[in-house]
Amino acid sequence: MRGPGCRHPPSSSSSSMPTSLVRETEVDVLVVGAGPAGIMCANALAKAGVNVRIIDQRPSKVAAGQADGIQPRTIEVFQSYGLAERLLREGNQMHIAAFYNPSQHGGIELTDRVPDVTAPTARYPFEVTLHQGAIESIFLDSMREMGVEVSRPVVPTHLDIDTTKLDDPNAYAARVSGVKTSRTFGKRDNHGGCAREICRRDRRYTANRCYSISTLKIQYQGAHSWVRKTLNIAMEGSQTDYVWGVVDMVPRTDFPDVRHKTAVHSENGSCMIIPREGDMIRLYIQLEGKDAVDATSGRIDKKRTGPHQLLEVARKSLYPYVFETPEAFHWWTIYIIGQRVASRFSVDERVFIAGDACHTFAFLLLPNSFYQHSLSQSFPQSRSRNERQHERCSQSRQAFLPMLSRQLTFCTAAWKLVYVLRGWAGLSLLKTYEFERRKYAQDLIDFDVKFSGLFSGKPRTTMNENGVSHEDFLKAFQTFGGFTSGIGIRYGESPIVRYGNQSCAHSIVVGQRMPPQLFIRAADGRPVELQDLLPSNTLFKLLVFTGDTVTAALGHLAANLQEIVDKFATNVELISILSPAKQPDFCFMDLPGALRPHWTKVLSDEKDLRGTEGGNAYAAYGIDPHAGALVCVRPDGYVGIVVPLEEASNIASYFTSFMV
Amino acid sequence: MRGPGCRHPPSSSSSSMPTSLVRETEVDVLVVGAGPAGIMCANALAKAGVNVRIIDQRPSKVAAGQADGIQPRTIEVFQSYGLAERLLREGNQMHIAAFYNPSQHGGIELTDRVPDVTAPTARYPFEVTLHQGAIESIFLDSMREMGVEVSRPVVPTHLDIDTTKLDDPNAYAARVSGVKTSRTFGKRDNHGGCAREICRRDRRYTANRCYSISTLKIQYQGAHSWVRKTLNIAMEGSQTDYVWGVVDMVPRTDFPDVRHKTAVHSENGSCMIIPREGDMIRLYIQLEGKDAVDATSGRIDKKRTGPHQLLEVARKSLYPYVFETPEAFHWWTIYIIGQRVASRFSVDERVFIAGDACHTFAFLLLPNSFYQHSLSQSFPQSRSRNERQHERCSQSRQAFLPMLSRQLTFCTAAWKLVYVLRGWAGLSLLKTYEFERRKYAQDLIDFDVKFSGLFSGKPRTTMNENGVSHEDFLKAFQTFGGFTSGIGIRYGESPIVRYGNQSCAHSIVVGQRMPPQLFIRAADGRPVELQDLLPSNTLFKLLVFTGDTVTAALGHLAANLQEIVDKFATNVELISILSPAKQPDFCFMDLPGALRPHWTKVLSDEKDLRGTEGGNAYAAYGIDPHAGALVCVRPDGYVGIVVPLEEASNIASYFTSFMV
Repeated sequence: MRGPGCRHPPSSSSSSMPTSLVRETEVDVLVVGAGPAGIMCANALAKAGVNVRIIDQRPSKVAAGQADGIQPRTIEVFQSYGLAERLLREGNQMHIAAFYNPSQHGGIELTDRVPDVTAPTARYPFEVTLHQGAIESIFLDSMREMGVEVSRPVVPTHLDIDTTKLDDPNAYAARVSGVKTSRTFGKRDNHGGCAREICRRDRRYTANRCYSISTLKIQYQGAHSWVRKTLNIAMEGSQTDYVWGVVDMVPRTDFPDVRHKTAVHSENGSCMIIPREGDMIRLYIQLEGKDAVDATSGRIDKKRTGPHQLLEVARKSLYPYVFETPEAFHWWTIYIIGQRVASRFSVDERVFIAGDACHTFAFLLLPNSFYQHSLSQSFPQSRSRNERQHERCSQSRQAFLPMLSRQLTFCTAAWKLVYVLRGWAGLSLLKTYEFERRKYAQDLIDFDVKFSGLFSGKPRTTMNENGVSHEDFLKAFQTFGGFTSGIGIRYGESPIVRYGNQSCAHSIVVGQRMPPQLFIRAADGRPVELQDLLPSNTLFKLLVFTGDTVTAALGHLAANLQEIVDKFATNVELISILSPAKQPDFCFMDLPGALRPHWTKVLSDEKDLRGTEGGNAYAAYGIDPHAGALVCVRPDGYVGIVVPLEEASNIASYFTSFMV
Repeated sequence: MRGPGCRHPPSSSSSSMPTSLVRETEVDVLVVGAGPAGIMCANALAKAGVNVRIIDQRPSKVAAGQADGIQPRTIEVFQSYGLAERLLREGNQMHIAAFYNPSQHGGIELTDRVPDVTAPTARYPFEVTLHQGAIESIFLDSMREMGVEVSRPVVPTHLDIDTTKLDDPNAYAARVSGVKTSRTFGKRDNHGGCAREICRRDRRYTANRCYSISTLKIQYQGAHSWVRKTLNIAMEGSQTDYVWGVVDMVPRTDFPDVRHKTAVHSENGSCMIIPREGDMIRLYIQLEGKDAVDATSGRIDKKRTGPHQLLEVARKSLYPYVFETPEAFHWWTIYIIGQRVASRFSVDERVFIAGDACHTFAFLLLPNSFYQHSLSQSFPQSRSRNERQHERCSQSRQAFLPMLSRQLTFCTAAWKLVYVLRGWAGLSLLKTYEFERRKYAQDLIDFDVKFSGLFSGKPRTTMNENGVSHEDFLKAFQTFGGFTSGIGIRYGESPIVRYGNQSCAHSIVVGQRMPPQLFIRAADGRPVELQDLLPSNTLFKLLVFTGDTVTAALGHLAANLQEIVDKFATNVELISILSPAKQPDFCFMDLPGALRPHWTKVLSDEKDLRGTEGGNAYAAYGIDPHAGALVCVRPDGYVGIVVPLEEASNIASYFTSFMV
């Protein structure tokens, strides 16, 4: 499905120049916007062999700048694409959260240190911080290996959906026109409309592009999403009164928790420290609105302050600890906390929005989103060229600044597009996109509202008994640990998530991601992480917890499962997991052939020979070692259905309900 | 020191053509032979910024072929160069060793399964198998990132050492002449002697090269080492009567231990299974000499047998298990076990030999070396072109087939060359090369003699009570576990290894590699492996186990160590390790500045906040948590000296004894 066709239509209604100059390309999926969400989606689709194009209006990718917090679940998703190794090599890890509160002696003092990640099943029990440019490179390099590059700078101009074609999943029902701009940023040469392009790849020429879109178009764009506006999808939500400043720098300090995620509540405002890659940290600093907001317009006015002033405010919160003025401020900004969510996530199952295009919010303990609205018109006009460039960069970045950890999970929906494009599933599968995303996005925003309020509030002291106590704050931090880490996401019931039968596997929650677990591979005694057998490769994985190994029962089971695997051969892979209750002399080679499709696909729940690893899986998953269970994991790693071994036929009907 | 100079000398005594055509390049180190040992050494030198060249007479690198067993210590060495990640991603892992012996019912039966690696401190408790081409690629890619490529095909023709220059470490005392051959294999256009080269880089031309070598030349070549012969270094050792065949294939079998390292003793000969990357295995098959050896010459005659015949022999050993004829035999050969070691490892501290150039031996449980002598003249003459190509490849490979796991450790000596080249140490440091290598090489060969005898011998049965019992065999396997894994290497006393003070750190053996240990980093609570703070970067690491943290004592210690670090600032890095006996409120920021040169260089021996990792280091290392200790680790990861905290001055005299 790779290698898009390129054709020159005989006429183009919206063009006044010779039509032969319009380049029209048919693609299965066009991704508009090469921010993190866009490139992750494009990467996922390319990996699945889909004919995907990705365009972006920026002339080049983000070079450096914004840090971003990668949540534990997101690291698992990276790993499912084979990309976690590099992320972990390049990124900083946050293992500990520290809390400071007012001291009786003035200034602040350490109140508590707790694990940063409290979700007990997190495979990676920490957060990673890494600047956005480095994160994007990981995906861009992965895409490049598959021959997919971002076309840039291309500015989209028109989006049409041919509603007469919506019922035909193979129809190219969406059409996007774009303008290929000059590579010099800002020097845009727009001939307007769905106009001409000299049909050559030479990027020195300013030209227009016209994309004809097959089946589906995923629109991944930032808060100023062109697609969202084009389709009249509103952003719903509110702005708060909380104003915060941000400064990136290499600290020179005697503060001992500067490499922890540190929340500081002081009499002089709140402050947050987020350590970053290298020696850098980011400071989030609570501001008095009057310091930064124009009273008349209610908008941020960056002229009123700067990084030195921000650090000065931080110093008051952090007293008695000393933060010397650093050699340089690597980046800074100011924002008003706000939370908004798009009113729709998709249109006609042809256009999907994701990333900042569908929600913006500031999540204070995972802080990386900004309320661009207030900021975008506030840049001072008379600065040096360097300063202007820096600010333009900041501004441009803010317009795409992602809630990366949240966005990443969107790429896990790519398999649904693949299934429809390949004809493996009907269009209705795509309705689950909005269904599974919306509730989570709203929950997240509700949580952010609560949490940012707690953090921006005054601390409780003897003088202010109504303030926020450390206990309240810590409780919120820990209560929502599973949620904020991404581990706690649970999808609602749908054709692809069938609740029930939890008694077969108490701790494998249907609708949640399959929890990690170490096994010993039966054939070679190698310890393997189950999640590494569940890569994001568009296959459903049918985990057969074989229970005790009575030969007759196994034969019956094997026959049932063979039928399912044969029927859905393209989409289902089988993995057998031997029980600790198996007969002592039972060898994996004794399994019927259907239950050991390859020597790497049989795991054992026994300790390894050195007695150090493994042997705890049936117990950890809450599966009876005699009864066993069937667990079906979706291509994105989420549990779709659990059934008893005897009810294998329910697996068949699960697949039949959405697969063609 | 990078970027070799290229000069055109006014005259060249050995040339009859215009001298301007001779290209002469000055390099600090020339590596002859781009087999595994050669490229590992070149990579290590390039990483240290040395001006290194590497030549090889083969027109291209090994494409695929030989598997090779990478030992636990060797994986640690890969990791010290930042290369283990890729090795582990691409290679197969052997975790279990299985043993089969004659069954009372005829055929063989399982006797035992044990962990393949028994060395208790192995960081990677398994062996890795990966074909040589893939291993070489890991190092070639690493070298390429530093701008170093193998010059090939270049055949060395002359080696001269100017003995009048030996005392000057900066003199270019060694000169190698080489012939740049045509890139077409076998079409060698040799003008003879130290002859002409048209001074251009166009590789389409056949030309000669002349290298003028600075200071040191490391000669890494295979069993037919040109350098060894040129310098008249003899190979000493013996050949046995044991003849073995080797077959690589993807097995189709009901044998349950085909993915374990499996030693089979049967009434019908012995057999060894080594699983490899992908689905491949290698079978080592004991042969009757008459099947493969020409009675007249005593040499292997490959015409007498082939892979089908070898598999037929294996089937007799492996009965009652079935090995079907595979779709293809990927490689096969026959060899006679022999062990030889070079009589010298270096000449005038200017030329060093390593790899198969200094020892050949067949190590049956780690089998990857061949006795080329017997094989190189035995190829049949009348075969199809494909077959001939395949055999030429095999033959060529055998001539360089490495005992990789042993050779790898040679690259750890690269730091010594760097120290002399940079003027940080006197020439005498290089004498430790031969000293540290020779004993180990000989021990290894002695062990191989013993072990291959045990394995090639008949099994003990009721009919043959003098045969080899499983208990004898297993005992040898486990007794030598530390040794065969590479973990057990202990260097003798020398200026760079000072025995003594073991009571300060019972389990850190001076002369052995620093054992791995997990710590919690003080500043950010991240679990870190100490070995990852000991990369092969030419720095000595001075580990300060601070003991209890009495402020006055710490201040005194810090002053002493500051002096040492200042004096040897280029070569010594300090890492502090806080004790579990420290005062509860002692924070790493309370350490004197000299003891925390960077926030990443202070470790804590406490459990992490989740209580799952760390907290065992002082105990595991046998260090009194109150008394502490100073441990100096060499740039190659071996422990050079241990002293009590009060005797920091002994560290200074240790450095002074060999550093300028």
